[in-house]
Amino acid sequence: MSPTADSSGHYGYIEDKAQYLQRMKRVEGQARGIARMIEEDKYCIDILTQISALTRAIQGVATGLLDDHLKHCVLDAAKLSDEAARIKIQEATDAINRLVRS
Amino acid sequence: MSPTADSSGHYGYIEDKAQYLQRMKRVEGQARGIARMIEEDKYCIDILTQISALTRAIQGVATGLLDDHLKHCVLDAAKLSDEAARIKIQEATDAINRLVRS
Amino acid sequence: MSPTADSSGHYGYIEDKAQYLQRMKRVEGQARGIARMIEEDKYCIDILTQISALTRAIQGVATGLLDDHLKHCVLDAAKLSDEAARIKIQEATDAINRLVRS
Amino acid sequence: MSPTADSSGHYGYIEDKAQYLQRMKRVEGQARGIARMIEEDKYCIDILTQISALTRAIQGVATGLLDDHLKHCVLDAAKLSDEAARIKIQEATDAINRLVRS
Repeated sequence: MSPTADSSGHYGYIEDKAQYLQRMKRVEGQARGIARMIEEDKYCIDILTQISALTRAIQGVATGLLDDHLKHCVLDAAKLSDEAARIKIQEATDAINRLVRS
Repeated sequence: MSPTADSSGHYGYIEDKAQYLQRMKRVEGQARGIARMIEEDKYCIDILTQISALTRAIQGVATGLLDDHLKHCVLDAAKLSDEAARIKIQEATDAINRLVRS
Repeated sequence: MSPTADSSGHYGYIEDKAQYLQRMKRVEGQARGIARMIEEDKYCIDILTQISALTRAIQGVATGLLDDHLKHCVLDAAKLSDEAARIKIQEATDAINRLVRS
Repeated sequence: MSPTADSSGHYGYIEDKAQYLQRMKRVEGQARGIARMIEEDKYCIDILTQISALTRAIQGVATGLLDDHLKHCVLDAAKLSDEAARIKIQEATDAINRLVRS
């Protein structure tokens, strides 16, 4: 639940931190835009179109983070031991299951 | 793209407007919370868990709006003509396709 | 669980029955092809590509059936009463929830 | 597109091959059952319930294969070089993107 970061004390997505923050700002803006559409009685189908766009955006963030997790946390763990890497992979698999299901 | 509302000049979700606005506020808060986790270098897997929660929340809003669309816009259109109802249903089907795919 | 069909004793998808049967034959063939790839020790990533194709195919059948349900069962029910139509729509919404989640 | 298997000439899922074949047999049977329901004019909503079950089953196979890919192909590649592992991970990420989207 509170795993160790890599040797530099950081997780894999750190390098792209600014990019992820920008993407989440956009998702937040999309959520606010959808609320405004509801507030202004916009047509339900048009709101659904925006919800699909938000869903795609947040899932893009998720698969990006997952890729970073595999390329950094898992590979760093693999240098310690197979067992350490397996633990990180199991966490990734559980996260993938939740994503595919959600 | 800008279809007519029902006889009262409103779309189906209007009755639950406050409830939908509240749910979207929560989604917006979830997006902000995820940005904060990234900002604070939280563990990627924990961030993914929160992304799954946000995705479920926004999809709950989507299926709710869709249900309201079917129960109001479609049924109202059905009182005019089968043709009018079919147009509304086609829009709903297209939205469902986008949701299932996203 | 065993709802009444339309006045002709049939459900909406009946008109397209041959087309749906053909699509399901193809899905069955895809499932068999994936089993064969596993049997022949094919590369896991190539198998996953085929699984994505099967998933898209079966979801296309699902959204097609849903569209037929809305255009036939729901519209037929709407001619009886709003209440009858609402019951059919609720069933559709529950099915959509399961699809979006699965 | 035709990557090398591990040192023993096999991919990661091989150990569970019998289990995966059995699960794919079941998916094939589910596809046949759905075709039969269509053939016998079963209620569309009941067919959709079976389609959701098939979708969940095939996605369970997918996430299982992905887990095996990460635990075997990726970790084996990590012993060769970071670069080799990154190639395998990129393939996994692309497959995850397709799964989440499908």
